[in-house]
Amino acid sequence: MKTTRRKFIGAMAQMAAAFGITTWPMVSFAKTTEEKMLVHQVYFWLKDPEDRQAFDQLKSGLEKILRISSIESGHIGVPATTEARDVVDHSYSFSYQVRFKNIADHDSYQEDPIHLQFIEECADLWNQVKVYDYNPL
Amino acid sequence: MKTTRRKFIGAMAQMAAAFGITTWPMVSFAKTTEEKMLVHQVYFWLKDPEDRQAFDQLKSGLEKILRISSIESGHIGVPATTEARDVVDHSYSFSYQVRFKNIADHDSYQEDPIHLQFIEECADLWNQVKVYDYNPL
Repeated sequence: MKTTRRKFIGAMAQMAAAFGITTWPMVSFAKTTEEKMLVHQVYFWLKDPEDRQAFDQLKSGLEKILRISSIESGHIGVPATTEARDVVDHSYSFSYQVRFKNIADHDSYQEDPIHLQFIEECADLWNQVKVYDYNPL
Repeated sequence: MKTTRRKFIGAMAQMAAAFGITTWPMVSFAKTTEEKMLVHQVYFWLKDPEDRQAFDQLKSGLEKILRISSIESGHIGVPATTEARDVVDHSYSFSYQVRFKNIADHDSYQEDPIHLQFIEECADLWNQVKVYDYNPL
């Protein structure tokens, strides 16, 4: 295998020389932005944080969308009892994190009927949503 | 094993009856808030988002604190190229997520010399930090 690879590189070098190419083009095997794993992190603020029924309804809705097939993994969270500091926001009702293999899976999730139904049924429960989408390095 | 368990429960019932206890106390094996897994999610906004040196310095700092021993797992992220919507914030420079077995490990992380050194060396690079700490359900 090593010999084959060396022969191939040698042939490429000869061909490059024949075309007058002396500097090699960089061939990168790094993932493109489209191929990268994507984390979709959402925070929900209930209109009435004390409304237990609204809390249960949103929790149940989030549990349903967690089952959308394009999701790789995910979980629902509630604010932890860490120290109250200016930079720490404990005011939201739910944290919701889902991971996708790539941005195409994320886009398909956004349009999934289960997701659209969730928005229709639950959007009236919250007064604020914040989304942070990121690619882990 | 099953017999042992049954015998134990039987002995408990006899003891309860001897003490005049007819309703059983609820024994919950659910984790207390202190025992629950904790996700510490932070977003950093660089003072100058275009400053490549500041970007590299903060990235390097985050990579260092990721090695703090009380962390169970974690990663650094950068904004994904998802659709620009009102609810989606793409303006931050880094997303940083670490998970801890419990709140004690989180508190120990906050006071870890590596973490304190990071704040001393890097705090001047950002103009905003947002933290969301949550317990996955």
